[in-house]
Amino acid sequence: MPVFLDATAPDFKAAFETLLTAKREDSPDVDEAVARIIADVRARGDDAVIALTQTYDRLALTPETMQVSEAEIAEATAAVPAEEMRALELAADRIREYHARQTPQDEQWTDATGATLGWRWTPVAAAGLYVPGGLASYPSSVLMNAIPAKVAGVPRLAMVVPAPDGVLNPLVLAAAQLAGVDEIYRIGGAQAVAALAYGTDTIAPVDKITGPGNAYVAAAKRRVFGKVGIDMIAGPSEILVIADGDNDPDWIALDLLSQAEHDESAQSILITTDMALGRDVYEAVGTRLQTLERRAIAGASWRDFGAIIVVPDLATAAALSDRIAPEHLELCVADPDALSAQITHAGAIFLGQWTPEAIGDYVGGPNHVLPTARSARFSSGLSVLDFLKRTTLARMTPGALRSIGPAAETLARTESLEAHGLSVTARLNKLND
Amino acid sequence: MPVFLDATAPDFKAAFETLLTAKREDSPDVDEAVARIIADVRARGDDAVIALTQTYDRLALTPETMQVSEAEIAEATAAVPAEEMRALELAADRIREYHARQTPQDEQWTDATGATLGWRWTPVAAAGLYVPGGLASYPSSVLMNAIPAKVAGVPRLAMVVPAPDGVLNPLVLAAAQLAGVDEIYRIGGAQAVAALAYGTDTIAPVDKITGPGNAYVAAAKRRVFGKVGIDMIAGPSEILVIADGDNDPDWIALDLLSQAEHDESAQSILITTDMALGRDVYEAVGTRLQTLERRAIAGASWRDFGAIIVVPDLATAAALSDRIAPEHLELCVADPDALSAQITHAGAIFLGQWTPEAIGDYVGGPNHVLPTARSARFSSGLSVLDFLKRTTLARMTPGALRSIGPAAETLARTESLEAHGLSVTARLNKLND
Repeated sequence: MPVFLDATAPDFKAAFETLLTAKREDSPDVDEAVARIIADVRARGDDAVIALTQTYDRLALTPETMQVSEAEIAEATAAVPAEEMRALELAADRIREYHARQTPQDEQWTDATGATLGWRWTPVAAAGLYVPGGLASYPSSVLMNAIPAKVAGVPRLAMVVPAPDGVLNPLVLAAAQLAGVDEIYRIGGAQAVAALAYGTDTIAPVDKITGPGNAYVAAAKRRVFGKVGIDMIAGPSEILVIADGDNDPDWIALDLLSQAEHDESAQSILITTDMALGRDVYEAVGTRLQTLERRAIAGASWRDFGAIIVVPDLATAAALSDRIAPEHLELCVADPDALSAQITHAGAIFLGQWTPEAIGDYVGGPNHVLPTARSARFSSGLSVLDFLKRTTLARMTPGALRSIGPAAETLARTESLEAHGLSVTARLNKLND
Repeated sequence: MPVFLDATAPDFKAAFETLLTAKREDSPDVDEAVARIIADVRARGDDAVIALTQTYDRLALTPETMQVSEAEIAEATAAVPAEEMRALELAADRIREYHARQTPQDEQWTDATGATLGWRWTPVAAAGLYVPGGLASYPSSVLMNAIPAKVAGVPRLAMVVPAPDGVLNPLVLAAAQLAGVDEIYRIGGAQAVAALAYGTDTIAPVDKITGPGNAYVAAAKRRVFGKVGIDMIAGPSEILVIADGDNDPDWIALDLLSQAEHDESAQSILITTDMALGRDVYEAVGTRLQTLERRAIAGASWRDFGAIIVVPDLATAAALSDRIAPEHLELCVADPDALSAQITHAGAIFLGQWTPEAIGDYVGGPNHVLPTARSARFSSGLSVLDFLKRTTLARMTPGALRSIGPAAETLARTESLEAHGLSVTARLNKLND
């Protein structure tokens, strides 16, 4: 049974705390197994990757068949029905347009001392994209990871996707093609992450790895972090809907269920100012759960982690939302912009009742890779910035050095770093010759 | 003996590879000890912090004396000599001006379908700054970490700094005061990181922790990552100088030694097109090492990890530099801008012979917290962005949903996520009523 809470009740604080801190995921401890796999790939390269793919995916590869060929990609793409291809293209175009606006500017200026200062952004030289196989092999995730990399200007984007028993999702290949992925390898698991990070004879190493995956993939990403950059380690998905009384309960119910159907560990919460709407949504969820295809998963998530919270006003709703720091936040209220202005911590905000969260998963434009597990308090969704790095620039003139050099000499002395100070002194002496 | 390499020699490739992959740091494995300390602080809060501070810093604290009082800060600041205070102020002003330019813009626009899209940036609610004690207690690091946080608008900035035997560096307190730090606690080590991440009765938890520290601090930051955000885990410092023949060998020698004096694990490399300059710098380093205060440290670093590489041309120098992806890169050449344009991977570039790297450590303006150990391939120095997070925004109109909703329905169907599709369908049905 999902919890049904009244924010004005005396026991609310404790109940809300329980909701916030519920442990929703028991990751199996696969760290030792992953350490062995990574060491094996580092030592034996392609041979290790091929052996592990045989074991885990029941697929016999050679260095020659590891990479998906252009002919295979073309064949898969040709087999995608026209309507689906058009939908993918619309999504890709909208994601590309949104992310193109994120490209940051280089800056350079000269200050009053004559010093020229600034910075410039450059893309990583090569990025790797992990795509899960099987049920969670989502073409939309390919677009959401690959397009920001290509907008950033990453010249080489290598994708790995496991092909259990040799099967690949044609839509995933089509999405990769659309997004401009340069290489696709039919490998997965920790061995694929290790191959991307350290390279093999067949797969050149990359500098950054992004994309979702199971516990093995997550543990492997943690382990190769430092050798390469990684994106976040995503937890199970979450949605918070804040709604006033003027809503269709069935719409809200479907929005809650669209997170719940992802994963038994997903969490869907409704905060409403209207007790009657809360009850109606509760009913509507029950009704929809009778027929939903993924009712087993969605039902378990709703039962174990779902919640409906009734609040006296929207200000209370905003305050509770910031405590939750939700991955997805829907504001189904008369003035969503005003409520949005009261929110500080959220991965993505969906404004108004015509903006179901599912739009953001596919075609809205913003990225659907978002911070989970309250990490929106300190982190952001995937963006073009994840595939760029900044180099700072400084150029002194003799005049600038004369102006600010003595302060550097003083501070170097206070920190007992003599050579630091002398490197300035030697130059100032030359100016005073 | 530092290596002296000729880039045109047949064995150069192997020798350069050895230089690139030299293991410069043997971190002691303190992970188990750190795990115990964190668990202790989570379980016992202030009591654990106080007990651990007694053990490691030989300092008896109470919850009341854990925080450095305003009177102590005022007294320390008053004791700082005027010249040193002016130098700190000049540094703080320049760092603030540089970082203020990094503040990103919020964006919002309406597209052709009528959908409103955008994003906004907000600061983390609270940040924690770790400052090492003892020899490495640098006031410049306080400025470099605290000022970007305050420029970002972080409302609460809590600093921790160990006080071994009760001793604090007055300049560190003065720098914290100048930078706008809100709270200072005289604690350090893994226990301080745990207190910042999880909170105690005395110290409220923060959302993001930055700042350098020893192996215990680094391991603690890795462990609390996810619960809070962290900055990079910094390795030993590095400098690469690219110089043509028209340079004073003593200036270059001092620039190389200003990294070497930080740490026996630091690395200083010169790449030059002029064999004679290479030899003269080698001589000059030897001469300076006879008298330098920190000659034991600088000498060990130069002996074990120093290198001089002679190249046939600057294009070769740029290519080698990108392989190294240096933390600090000095371009002491006639046209540093032209050479800079050939470089892709570097934390900070110092242009021309009047820009010693030490200027960047103190008063240049750019941050001195920079990516080490070749991580400039995929990461950037500390900036205002490290203390901000982005919330994406989307608002559909009925018209926008009619325009792009069907593509979302199609993609949801291909991913077998029925509720996702139905949340769009229910709304489109209403429009078609």
